[in-house]
Amino acid sequence: MSPALDQLCIDTLRMLGVDMVEKARSGHPGLPLGAAPMAYVLWSRFLRHNPTNPAWWDRDRFVLSAGHGSALLYALLYLTGYPELTLDQIKRFRQWGSVTPGHPESHLTRGVEASTGPLGQGMGNALGMAIAEAHLAARYNRPGHEIFHHTTYVLASDGDMMEGVASEAGSLAGHLRLGRLIVLHDDNGVTLSATTSITFTEDVTARYAAYGWHVQRVRDGNDTEAIARAITAARDVTDRPSLIAVRTVLGCGAPDKQGTFQAHGSPLGPEEVARTKEHFGWPLEPTFFVPDAALSHYRRAVERGAQAEEEWRARFRAYESAFPDLAVELVRRFDARLPEGWDEGLPSFPASPEGMATRKASEGVLQSIADAVPELVGGSGDLDSSTYTWIKGRGDFESKERSSRGVQGTVGGGWGHAGRNIHFGVREHAMGTSVNGLVYHGGFIPFGATFLVFHDYMRPAVRLSAIAGLRSIWVYTHDSIGVGEDGPTHEPVEQLAALRAMPNLVDIRPCDANETRWAWQVALEAHDRPTAIVLTRQSVPTLDRSVFAPASMLRHGAYVLDRGASAGDPEVILIASGSEVALIVEAAELLKNAGIRARLVSMPSWRLFEEQSAEYREGVLPARIRARLAVEAASPLGWERWVGLEGAIMSVNRFGASAPGPEVLEEYGFTAQRVADAAAALRSRARAG
Amino acid sequence: MSPALDQLCIDTLRMLGVDMVEKARSGHPGLPLGAAPMAYVLWSRFLRHNPTNPAWWDRDRFVLSAGHGSALLYALLYLTGYPELTLDQIKRFRQWGSVTPGHPESHLTRGVEASTGPLGQGMGNALGMAIAEAHLAARYNRPGHEIFHHTTYVLASDGDMMEGVASEAGSLAGHLRLGRLIVLHDDNGVTLSATTSITFTEDVTARYAAYGWHVQRVRDGNDTEAIARAITAARDVTDRPSLIAVRTVLGCGAPDKQGTFQAHGSPLGPEEVARTKEHFGWPLEPTFFVPDAALSHYRRAVERGAQAEEEWRARFRAYESAFPDLAVELVRRFDARLPEGWDEGLPSFPASPEGMATRKASEGVLQSIADAVPELVGGSGDLDSSTYTWIKGRGDFESKERSSRGVQGTVGGGWGHAGRNIHFGVREHAMGTSVNGLVYHGGFIPFGATFLVFHDYMRPAVRLSAIAGLRSIWVYTHDSIGVGEDGPTHEPVEQLAALRAMPNLVDIRPCDANETRWAWQVALEAHDRPTAIVLTRQSVPTLDRSVFAPASMLRHGAYVLDRGASAGDPEVILIASGSEVALIVEAAELLKNAGIRARLVSMPSWRLFEEQSAEYREGVLPARIRARLAVEAASPLGWERWVGLEGAIMSVNRFGASAPGPEVLEEYGFTAQRVADAAAALRSRARAG
Repeated sequence: MSPALDQLCIDTLRMLGVDMVEKARSGHPGLPLGAAPMAYVLWSRFLRHNPTNPAWWDRDRFVLSAGHGSALLYALLYLTGYPELTLDQIKRFRQWGSVTPGHPESHLTRGVEASTGPLGQGMGNALGMAIAEAHLAARYNRPGHEIFHHTTYVLASDGDMMEGVASEAGSLAGHLRLGRLIVLHDDNGVTLSATTSITFTEDVTARYAAYGWHVQRVRDGNDTEAIARAITAARDVTDRPSLIAVRTVLGCGAPDKQGTFQAHGSPLGPEEVARTKEHFGWPLEPTFFVPDAALSHYRRAVERGAQAEEEWRARFRAYESAFPDLAVELVRRFDARLPEGWDEGLPSFPASPEGMATRKASEGVLQSIADAVPELVGGSGDLDSSTYTWIKGRGDFESKERSSRGVQGTVGGGWGHAGRNIHFGVREHAMGTSVNGLVYHGGFIPFGATFLVFHDYMRPAVRLSAIAGLRSIWVYTHDSIGVGEDGPTHEPVEQLAALRAMPNLVDIRPCDANETRWAWQVALEAHDRPTAIVLTRQSVPTLDRSVFAPASMLRHGAYVLDRGASAGDPEVILIASGSEVALIVEAAELLKNAGIRARLVSMPSWRLFEEQSAEYREGVLPARIRARLAVEAASPLGWERWVGLEGAIMSVNRFGASAPGPEVLEEYGFTAQRVADAAAALRSRARAG
Repeated sequence: MSPALDQLCIDTLRMLGVDMVEKARSGHPGLPLGAAPMAYVLWSRFLRHNPTNPAWWDRDRFVLSAGHGSALLYALLYLTGYPELTLDQIKRFRQWGSVTPGHPESHLTRGVEASTGPLGQGMGNALGMAIAEAHLAARYNRPGHEIFHHTTYVLASDGDMMEGVASEAGSLAGHLRLGRLIVLHDDNGVTLSATTSITFTEDVTARYAAYGWHVQRVRDGNDTEAIARAITAARDVTDRPSLIAVRTVLGCGAPDKQGTFQAHGSPLGPEEVARTKEHFGWPLEPTFFVPDAALSHYRRAVERGAQAEEEWRARFRAYESAFPDLAVELVRRFDARLPEGWDEGLPSFPASPEGMATRKASEGVLQSIADAVPELVGGSGDLDSSTYTWIKGRGDFESKERSSRGVQGTVGGGWGHAGRNIHFGVREHAMGTSVNGLVYHGGFIPFGATFLVFHDYMRPAVRLSAIAGLRSIWVYTHDSIGVGEDGPTHEPVEQLAALRAMPNLVDIRPCDANETRWAWQVALEAHDRPTAIVLTRQSVPTLDRSVFAPASMLRHGAYVLDRGASAGDPEVILIASGSEVALIVEAAELLKNAGIRARLVSMPSWRLFEEQSAEYREGVLPARIRARLAVEAASPLGWERWVGLEGAIMSVNRFGASAPGPEVLEEYGFTAQRVADAAAALRSRARAG
């Protein structure tokens, strides 16, 4: 490699980025110009990847946390030979139907490891990937058989570094001592609106050192050898993640705009482009010019990658011979196939008027799944003792150092990185992003748990799980004003509606222990989308399924609960979810005594119900019956969809209050008598109307 | 003060906390037991407050960021003599209707400076309060007239320290060099579910030092003199915020549970309570025992407070004489009264088919308001050049050091802490919490701006503004898939529904420049609740208000746009908000040509419309007309409320896509022809039905 060839390759990357943004008349030219040298060094000298098989398990991961620099990533994918990322796609940057959208989308573009753009997310995704690698290595590698040994690299911007989610991820990664996580900080001192001098003057490397990271600085972002030395040093540190702050110039080479925010988020404009190309000694025409020497140098990645994977495959074949069961399990995990009969041992709960909290039922189901499904890992935001999501007997994911010391507080100590319980701490947002990172990595079905009200703290990560189509499982307990004493800050009201508003997310609020079992089943079987399982703090009756419809009907989203009971057309339909189903069951008794025929509908999931056939939905909610009452201890928003303008909604239209849960529920009107009265009034109105 | 009396006072605090939690059978005893010494030292020796006037402007602020330790705060308020916080209220901890709810609620309990509980929020609130103090001091103090000189104190837990929002706030506070912000970190090494050794082993003080804070450690949280020395030292440092990490034992004195998570979030239980009281030499009975000596020592705060305020009042009288206009302005600001005629200069925009983006109209309105309303301050999350929320000619809020250096990148340099533009950086969550902190402080109408999609990043803060009833103004631009090239991660879909689901928040999505003016007016006039103003990136026509109803009708939430045009009963009603209003106006022309009578309804705010009389609502959406079409480039969730089961909704039921904005809108079906066709189909169905 000659310095001249290096420079040519770097400038090719730069100029492709500039031309892409210019042609699209939209995008961020500054990052490719400034960060091209470090990206080139990383991709040409360090990154172990196979362009013709982006799904190779043991590839290094590269996360562009600064997703607005997507042009750089697409240029790298094109230059190193990812077949789908053609020059034509490069030219169709940010256009309808291209695989080169404004920000990287993993479900659209092979080779893109994570959907990024909202700042800070990639840092947490990378944390999840590093957890994944460490866990797989600890669990599956055997002496002489190192199947997993890859590194997660991140390219992050100043904006990433400012976001709280990245701080959380940094703190947790340091604590977990994830030695195969390396972050390159594109330290250019400019953000979209200004230089960082007006917003961000902290000492970033000192902060990461405080997190327990190994930190380095590269003073000149154009010094490829210094960058290479720093990456090498970072790789040599195996007991801590590494941060390399690389000082760059945003928009480097654009004579008038470099180092200013004008180079950040808009095209340079034809004149500045011309002068930039002049600066780099680049031909003005043709645009999208790729020198043969540069292309062929980059394209060596294809051969190198194929060879690296082939060497690995040879190792894996040896592993397969030595440990056939483990190998089969791994193939299954990476194929995202559930084990045969995984659900056979799932518990079924006997009818019980006292019942149990659905969070408690979930605990039992979770244990059973965890036994059968080794790829299930997860944890909570410091709420294990409340969310009941700690997997028994499967160890805590923790650093080897801590593990070997048997530090006080270890719940399932001694497992090191092989433990399956991840203690995220009070870091809901990093939990969300790293759960997503585990899915991006492959080989895992991860969950993250917290109180429903704290969904708000991690909502951006949940949104990305929905956009990217990830099987992330979100477990949300303490799901209503039934929480009681903790008061309005801890009582969700609007969160259910907010979940239902999110495209591609499956909302499930099971009504009892047996529906909870099916909620988990649906979540595991959802291959390409996330599920939110919403659970009660308080006990709810376990319905007698010999009287009521089977809980497996949850799969349909909503179903008639009391099929047998409804002789003759119902006069009124009562619809509820979660803890309020018990209430409509009780109210139905009162109505029956009053001679009113009520149909009961359990509606645990709007999304699943919407996906049923029109016939099925008509069967549950016949158009002719408009006397419909919805009962749910949450925001009424959206319930008119099911009850129409003639129906009624018993809901919570204000924030909660602090008092014992049953008292709060009663004060807010959630009593069987109030439900029965409202239903009777509806039926009278329908008769009169 | 004798050490014995100190101890008695500290133990009184402890035992009140324990008894409160025990009687309520719910709560967090560990924090009061561990943090009582530092709380006592702060409140008895440093905190300048007046229990009989909790609204005194120049009081020190105390924020219990660890809101789960509310028992400690209530005990302090009772002991120091806040009249409403009686011993009876102490006994009614966490009960219905008490002023002692599970977590502190500022709108319920005088003396509570901020509603806390969701961790990390208080750290950001305190940042906002410190910004408020620094700004008022810089703007109103005059030589020899120091009207503002108070300190914001925070008591924060390990959980607070882990949350990303606190990291963002810490970084920004360090950057802004807010010398009158002092955080006491209750460094007890235990969280709700575990010890921090399994989640949180970073060096917190080193991290804060990296943020530019002055940091200290107190090795023994029971050493009152060491605590006092540290607070004194922190107060002496005036150019940096201070962190004091005080090593405590959670649940100190509870023999079996101290130092474990069992002391964190549940009552100790009668036996452990007995042994704890024994440990402290405390009588078992009566519960809620308050020794006279302790009470009278605490109650000296009443006289001390009255005297402190009286001294200040004398100063303020002198100030009033010297600077009568400033004094009048200050009184008005703290009374939360808008200036007379503040709205007279608000712009009115001429009709224009090309129109302008509502974010652009908002910029003009904002300038005009800022000229008339000096308490309006705010900024964006590094998006000034996109949200158009920079107030011209009013300076940037920045540290004196930076200001005097005229650092590169200063946009409105030289104002120091007197500047009114706050550059929050890429820290949406800290922006939200500190905007709330400015309202909590008093004397401000603050706003925070970002892209609508990044509302998700700050949603917990927005929720708290709604719970606490704060006039926080949230400006959200780039409000739909019309954003275009940036793609799904930057295109909001479900955010509008999520805003509408939140109780006590006013949602406004104005359709043109003139509605935008009224959106701001409503936001400023909303005394006790927050408003979200949702604005377009792209241009929308400015409607001709000589043809259409006046834009001031926005105050009603929804209104008939084309009153004059509707001769005869409409056959179909088209409802839209924001950028889609132009679309229904265009579609109405097509329908008119087809001989169909359509009514047009602009519905910028669901909340405001819901609050109108039934008659008014019936006037806009007559029950007899069920052929209704809603058009909004956002999630359909909730629209059935306005269109019923017979209506139709043109909406966005999936995530967005990356392509030029007009193309995305067209691909998603937002064309006048599609609207007209859907309306015609509805009308045909209605005729047939």
